[in-house]
Amino acid sequence: MSRKIGIIGMGNVGAAIAHGLIAQGAFDDYVFIDKKSVKVEADALDFQDALANLNHHANIVVNDYRALADAEIVISALGDIKLQDNPDADRFAELLGNAIEVKDVSEQLNAVGFSGVIIVISNPVDVITSLFQSYTGLPKQKVIGTGTLLDTARMKRAVGRQFSVDPRSVFGYNLGEHGNSQFTAWSQVRVKGNRISEIASADDLAQLGQEAIIGGHRVFFGKKYTNYGIASAAIRLALAVISDSHEELPVSNYYEPLDTYLSYPAVVGRVGIIEQVQLQLTDDEEKQLQASADFIKAKVASSLQ
Amino acid sequence: MSRKIGIIGMGNVGAAIAHGLIAQGAFDDYVFIDKKSVKVEADALDFQDALANLNHHANIVVNDYRALADAEIVISALGDIKLQDNPDADRFAELLGNAIEVKDVSEQLNAVGFSGVIIVISNPVDVITSLFQSYTGLPKQKVIGTGTLLDTARMKRAVGRQFSVDPRSVFGYNLGEHGNSQFTAWSQVRVKGNRISEIASADDLAQLGQEAIIGGHRVFFGKKYTNYGIASAAIRLALAVISDSHEELPVSNYYEPLDTYLSYPAVVGRVGIIEQVQLQLTDDEEKQLQASADFIKAKVASSLQ
Amino acid sequence: MSRKIGIIGMGNVGAAIAHGLIAQGAFDDYVFIDKKSVKVEADALDFQDALANLNHHANIVVNDYRALADAEIVISALGDIKLQDNPDADRFAELLGNAIEVKDVSEQLNAVGFSGVIIVISNPVDVITSLFQSYTGLPKQKVIGTGTLLDTARMKRAVGRQFSVDPRSVFGYNLGEHGNSQFTAWSQVRVKGNRISEIASADDLAQLGQEAIIGGHRVFFGKKYTNYGIASAAIRLALAVISDSHEELPVSNYYEPLDTYLSYPAVVGRVGIIEQVQLQLTDDEEKQLQASADFIKAKVASSLQ
Amino acid sequence: MSRKIGIIGMGNVGAAIAHGLIAQGAFDDYVFIDKKSVKVEADALDFQDALANLNHHANIVVNDYRALADAEIVISALGDIKLQDNPDADRFAELLGNAIEVKDVSEQLNAVGFSGVIIVISNPVDVITSLFQSYTGLPKQKVIGTGTLLDTARMKRAVGRQFSVDPRSVFGYNLGEHGNSQFTAWSQVRVKGNRISEIASADDLAQLGQEAIIGGHRVFFGKKYTNYGIASAAIRLALAVISDSHEELPVSNYYEPLDTYLSYPAVVGRVGIIEQVQLQLTDDEEKQLQASADFIKAKVASSLQ
Repeated sequence: MSRKIGIIGMGNVGAAIAHGLIAQGAFDDYVFIDKKSVKVEADALDFQDALANLNHHANIVVNDYRALADAEIVISALGDIKLQDNPDADRFAELLGNAIEVKDVSEQLNAVGFSGVIIVISNPVDVITSLFQSYTGLPKQKVIGTGTLLDTARMKRAVGRQFSVDPRSVFGYNLGEHGNSQFTAWSQVRVKGNRISEIASADDLAQLGQEAIIGGHRVFFGKKYTNYGIASAAIRLALAVISDSHEELPVSNYYEPLDTYLSYPAVVGRVGIIEQVQLQLTDDEEKQLQASADFIKAKVASSLQ
Repeated sequence: MSRKIGIIGMGNVGAAIAHGLIAQGAFDDYVFIDKKSVKVEADALDFQDALANLNHHANIVVNDYRALADAEIVISALGDIKLQDNPDADRFAELLGNAIEVKDVSEQLNAVGFSGVIIVISNPVDVITSLFQSYTGLPKQKVIGTGTLLDTARMKRAVGRQFSVDPRSVFGYNLGEHGNSQFTAWSQVRVKGNRISEIASADDLAQLGQEAIIGGHRVFFGKKYTNYGIASAAIRLALAVISDSHEELPVSNYYEPLDTYLSYPAVVGRVGIIEQVQLQLTDDEEKQLQASADFIKAKVASSLQ
Repeated sequence: MSRKIGIIGMGNVGAAIAHGLIAQGAFDDYVFIDKKSVKVEADALDFQDALANLNHHANIVVNDYRALADAEIVISALGDIKLQDNPDADRFAELLGNAIEVKDVSEQLNAVGFSGVIIVISNPVDVITSLFQSYTGLPKQKVIGTGTLLDTARMKRAVGRQFSVDPRSVFGYNLGEHGNSQFTAWSQVRVKGNRISEIASADDLAQLGQEAIIGGHRVFFGKKYTNYGIASAAIRLALAVISDSHEELPVSNYYEPLDTYLSYPAVVGRVGIIEQVQLQLTDDEEKQLQASADFIKAKVASSLQ
Repeated sequence: MSRKIGIIGMGNVGAAIAHGLIAQGAFDDYVFIDKKSVKVEADALDFQDALANLNHHANIVVNDYRALADAEIVISALGDIKLQDNPDADRFAELLGNAIEVKDVSEQLNAVGFSGVIIVISNPVDVITSLFQSYTGLPKQKVIGTGTLLDTARMKRAVGRQFSVDPRSVFGYNLGEHGNSQFTAWSQVRVKGNRISEIASADDLAQLGQEAIIGGHRVFFGKKYTNYGIASAAIRLALAVISDSHEELPVSNYYEPLDTYLSYPAVVGRVGIIEQVQLQLTDDEEKQLQASADFIKAKVASSLQ
């Protein structure tokens, strides 16, 4: 009855998630898993060297799947997170490598009887989330991808800057694949008490949508990875799960009408996805969602071969 | 009358400090300075992409020294932080490069009229802290190095593990240079209600002291840098300054009896160093402190030539 | 350049605000003002007795207006906060007493040259906010009442419970007077991706609106005051100001079209009200807003006689 | 595997504990128990009215012992907490009333199979802690009183003020009964790197000890109760338990040499008391501890009749 979380993959993103959580005292028990044992042990020790100067205690276990048996949440940050934000990347190359690793991790989680919620960050996230669900056999509601929770934050950043409001005062979502086929559902976006379409032109919206995407690329090219934005999305999702908050969040979850994982707003709690919301999208948005679904499904099919 | 902080140098350590602060909402206004403008702008954007999913707002300005005019604190994380933890590094190589950069930064801070507290992380930290004080001409009490606040945390981690207590329940300090000539003042260390020397043998103490040092090396060799431990030390120090907490912390400050900057416990507040404490060290510890001071002074002298 | 806040009136609400802020380390410097000097000194000492067991330092000054000269924010919690939530109270009785005290406090703030933002909780809040603005002569944007930020939270609690979502995932506002003439602008309320009117009947909405109001009464009759809900609203508003967050919040601010203070969503930052949003209300809602404005204006007129 | 806590007794102290915890998002699930159901329901609703403006979710259940079956921690704040701080109170009057309630609560906890840690605040705390252990039959290590953790904080406040340091930079403890027979073990107190006895006269120490005690009385007489100091002590203890921090804290725990509950430093974690430390007290201090123990034992004996 303390808060326990596992993080699989301690690259730039996994470590930023661990840092964000530990700095806030968000969890009590941490399990770090990474095949590069020297690196993950170095991170664990570095965090332990921080504890005397932090306000919260953290118990850290490294590379022991058995410690995950009673974890509430496992975050998969395995693989090379940069794929999605790097328009030049060869996605299939990463997908194939990650798919093998997902299978291995899933088997290990099953072996210890893990029955909590898996939060997937690994890219291509919709595909990998689907693979984790297949390989673990966990109920669909218990396997969630961060999906467009990050892209939505980027959209809110761009819209917030344009209208001089806090990103938290922009409402709306990016939907579909966490990748090129995603889109901002402008019909849903509200800012300063209005639908954005009533106070911004179609051209403005196109530019704002573009700015959100380009921002991600600019981060990637400037740092060679992105981590703080995605880490904050994963942390928010993890806190929604552990606290059973019933927050509505645009995350990658199984969308039955199109028979695939994709990002669509859902109510999140301790069981994972509690309920999907029902948006009234425009016809054009529905088509974009369909296209995004088709793309993801094709990827999943090829990965499970 | 909001909290404003500058971070100069957005490498692994500067970015981890920014992350730790922003994740907690510790400051309101941030100024990031780095000569690699593409990198620092990427980090700023990455943090802005996090804001929609964080609980606190953060205003971020990049590469504008004028914004530091009314900052309460500037943290220097410039240079290559890894020197100290890398026993193989050629320290002089870094020192020379950093010394030039310190002069440049100091002139820029002076030009905008910065009159707050400088917290120095850049290595070799005692030397660089001394240089910052010389070049800015700020009162000695306003220029502080993190010094052995990190080494002390490592010692507490090692002692805590040995005695099965939280590092925060270990009292004591590492003193002197944040480098090889430092030492744990075992005469001051207390754990479980006793002086550690009464419940541990001299051999045990030697091993614990060694473990603290080796730990740092293990982090360095496993990650090629260390950042979370040092970031938490810098953040703790910054919070002590901004909140005028009057906490006693082992940090690098000007020690008049030996006429040099070195780590020695001092009471820290909004003016920087409020008062040095007066320890009753053993003769042997006094000698170690003297040796550490001699080493630092020689380095400073050669840097200021 | 640290965070300083004043709290005027240390009754159940003022003390809960202080507690919430101090427990989180939200500000550095606190100034408590209350005519009952024994009580306010007792609270200050009680908080100081907490500091050894808290994670943050707090500097507390009692009953010294001069300390407010450079405060960013003053919260007025003077008077008997229970009026609004007690349907049996004789409001005029309190208003008259509070009006005299507001004048006295305003003169003291002017005497020390306070030029920050005043956040008013004292009831009847729209009237008292207006009086503070008149008596201090501060720009209208710098004097803000918590207004229906609390009623909105109650509406979100009721709607959230009905739809099994987190109150933070309900969007919308209560508008007008923080009192009986207020109303939920149901045309603006959204939950689970829909306008609430599309997924709830008019009867349901009437009941939800009633539940929000009755909830406040139930708290009042059960405790003889309400404090945690209102304290969290005031704290949120104070954090928006200090961090210059530009959050959109339904607070009591000067609404030019109806020439009065009333609650209407506005973008909040360090200067206070940055900008009002422009809602598209229904005709019926506009009438309710007008009626609320008329009520408040009559009260203000009688208070300023 | 989320954090769940019960609070029994929602008077001024219980409610302040709940507020401190909820404001920080320290736990996920809260169970409030109080015989005054109208009051405790009002508090629960007041907290729920805060959730839309807080950063964390909180699930609150009222007056359902079954919800405590899997709680990690139950805090007993039942009874009239003011006894200890009110030198005029008739302690036996409260003790008799509380003893009956403790028996009832213990039976209810046993009935639902509660097996976590009980943190006792109810006064006279050493006696009530002992009764809870007897009536529940829980292992002694799982029943802990806040004891002199508050008195120690008051001593640190007084010493900190005298020496111009943060209370967190004062090391040492008050021991024995949380009541008149308690004492500061000055042989253990350290400040600014020295044993306090080396930098303060016996007269100074006597006055500092007195100031700590008088401070509590001043809070009590000014407010008619004390709550923020004790709440922060209870919260710190609860966080040490839930996070298994192994912090050393002066709390009321079973002290075998004197066969009674009394305050003596111990290492605290998820199992409750992990280990008592072994202090080297002066002969005089040992006598004071003995006297304190005798007093508590007599009280316990008379209560269990």
